[in-house]
Amino acid sequence: MTPLKNDRFLRALMRQPVDMTPVWMMRQAGRYLPEYRASRAEAGDFMALCTNPERACEVTLQPLDRYPLDAAILFSDILTIPDAMGLGLYFEAGEGPRFRKPVRTEEDINQLSVINPQQDLPYVINAVSTIRRELNGRVPLIGFSGSPWTLATYMVEGGSSKDFARCKTMAYNQPELMHQLLDTLAKSVIVYLNAQIEAGAQAVQIFDTWGGALSHSAYRELSLQYMNQIVDGLLKQHEGRPVPVILFTKGGGQWLSDIANSGCHAVGLDWTTHIGDARSQVGDRVALQGNMDPAILRASPQRIREEVSAILSQFGSGNGHIFNLGHGITPDIDPEHAGVFVDAVHELSVKYHQKPS
Amino acid sequence: MTPLKNDRFLRALMRQPVDMTPVWMMRQAGRYLPEYRASRAEAGDFMALCTNPERACEVTLQPLDRYPLDAAILFSDILTIPDAMGLGLYFEAGEGPRFRKPVRTEEDINQLSVINPQQDLPYVINAVSTIRRELNGRVPLIGFSGSPWTLATYMVEGGSSKDFARCKTMAYNQPELMHQLLDTLAKSVIVYLNAQIEAGAQAVQIFDTWGGALSHSAYRELSLQYMNQIVDGLLKQHEGRPVPVILFTKGGGQWLSDIANSGCHAVGLDWTTHIGDARSQVGDRVALQGNMDPAILRASPQRIREEVSAILSQFGSGNGHIFNLGHGITPDIDPEHAGVFVDAVHELSVKYHQKPS
Repeated sequence: MTPLKNDRFLRALMRQPVDMTPVWMMRQAGRYLPEYRASRAEAGDFMALCTNPERACEVTLQPLDRYPLDAAILFSDILTIPDAMGLGLYFEAGEGPRFRKPVRTEEDINQLSVINPQQDLPYVINAVSTIRRELNGRVPLIGFSGSPWTLATYMVEGGSSKDFARCKTMAYNQPELMHQLLDTLAKSVIVYLNAQIEAGAQAVQIFDTWGGALSHSAYRELSLQYMNQIVDGLLKQHEGRPVPVILFTKGGGQWLSDIANSGCHAVGLDWTTHIGDARSQVGDRVALQGNMDPAILRASPQRIREEVSAILSQFGSGNGHIFNLGHGITPDIDPEHAGVFVDAVHELSVKYHQKPS
Repeated sequence: MTPLKNDRFLRALMRQPVDMTPVWMMRQAGRYLPEYRASRAEAGDFMALCTNPERACEVTLQPLDRYPLDAAILFSDILTIPDAMGLGLYFEAGEGPRFRKPVRTEEDINQLSVINPQQDLPYVINAVSTIRRELNGRVPLIGFSGSPWTLATYMVEGGSSKDFARCKTMAYNQPELMHQLLDTLAKSVIVYLNAQIEAGAQAVQIFDTWGGALSHSAYRELSLQYMNQIVDGLLKQHEGRPVPVILFTKGGGQWLSDIANSGCHAVGLDWTTHIGDARSQVGDRVALQGNMDPAILRASPQRIREEVSAILSQFGSGNGHIFNLGHGITPDIDPEHAGVFVDAVHELSVKYHQKPS
């Protein structure tokens, strides 16, 4: 493999010194970019992009050609695992993801088995190796998966949900059944992420998009417990380097200390958390990733720079900060504003990384 | 006025001793009750219920006839103020509330003025005095309003929103304009709640449903600041008693200490917060209200009792707990399960209120 030309992101994940704060954006390969919209139109639809390794590689690299980002992230969907389990993922215009065959009964769940990524999701594994090759050492490549709880919500509800009525009812009334589902998912996420790592992913992120909908105790039982299981099951080293793991629970700001105890290398923060307070809570256990409200990208360049400056100052000097948005960049953002954001992180963070003279 | 027969709720709000933990449910007069659905069908629609003081009184009292609740809450909508400002509130089946004339421009906002509750919302003020009379001292009556930020989100977006794009864009790009809107709303909420107090409301709650969508700093600037202004402007005493104020920010679990500094008497908690941790943070400054996940009401009676027991134990002994759900009860709940919940709070809390012998 080509040596890495920019390892700022991996160094920050390991809380090692860097020259400036690394930055990437959740959903950086996405609809706000005209070149992405063109690729998607050519491919036909979103799943056609995901399932074609060359197309997935093309859109993964697009934001890197525009902005000096410090990491690439595999272009894929968080719901590939349930799709591979036979639930029939589809998207309707203007709606979130849907499954043709949601899991609702004991029989449905008994029929699920742990996936075999090479057999069941070859397009993802091929996309990872293709992207890694085409990156040619520019920046590290992040692999990812949805968390077991987050996957379970879509599988049981059959799509997005406001209150997770079906999924919570199953968790409270048939806890063994829910745990059977979550365990199958956790084992699948382990083999899936390990396959991504073996194909070239140099760090992995687990997206726990809906963990924040749970009560504090249900979060530990239904979401964090299974993310812990995943962290334990992942390859610790690959290509002679550690493979850092980032856990991101949207709405998890009250549970950071427990998340930091999972053994992960970094905790992702949404914008509701003061990153300085978060740092006090997690101490030296983990790096922190985040956490600007993506809505700020709708503001003026000056306002964007002010917000970046405020977050850098809240984190303060020292190692272990990866700048990111608190959630994915939205389709309405002006690509120039995304550029202002990325440049501001680099420029304004230098002073926080100068060695004492 | 008839003397109050059950003042458990008001005593707990003032952190005074009680014999058992008082309980009420957000949205306790609601669609899960068949008698509510019958009243609504007779009235025609939701707004017809709200705008008819006799009907509003009827549905307010329905849950009290079923359950030994410790408080009644005015049946109304949080969006009455913007409706009175001329925005044209309406509801479409299966959708959230909508406004015919959202506020989007400087001109729109310049046209708004502080409401006069007696002139602009006589149906609400009449409903309060009617309910208070019909309660005849059974339990105290809670008045309420939406928070300025929460009202502003609906007014600017024109209805519900996933990401509050328009409202946040205004806040970041035209901050003076947003503050003008929020200030007009805060002044309106003050006169509105004071009119409810003068008509007979014995406590008031401010629903900050969407404060949790803001960043930690934007929350203080755009939501909490104006709730502070409201707390300062409310009548401190009425009928020779203090009038306690409850602030409830859904998703505000990371900001409890600042909320407790507002001068309010109680802070409402959603289910993501451990109420024992919350108590450590706020100390003796305020009472706490909450915080069972309403989804637990879908579980078995035994599971509901276990959850009530867990929350009572997390709060522990001592004064200042009002039991509630962490958000409104949903239409799909079996009314018997709501009864199990209310009874469990009373029965299982007695031991936490026994005087040391």
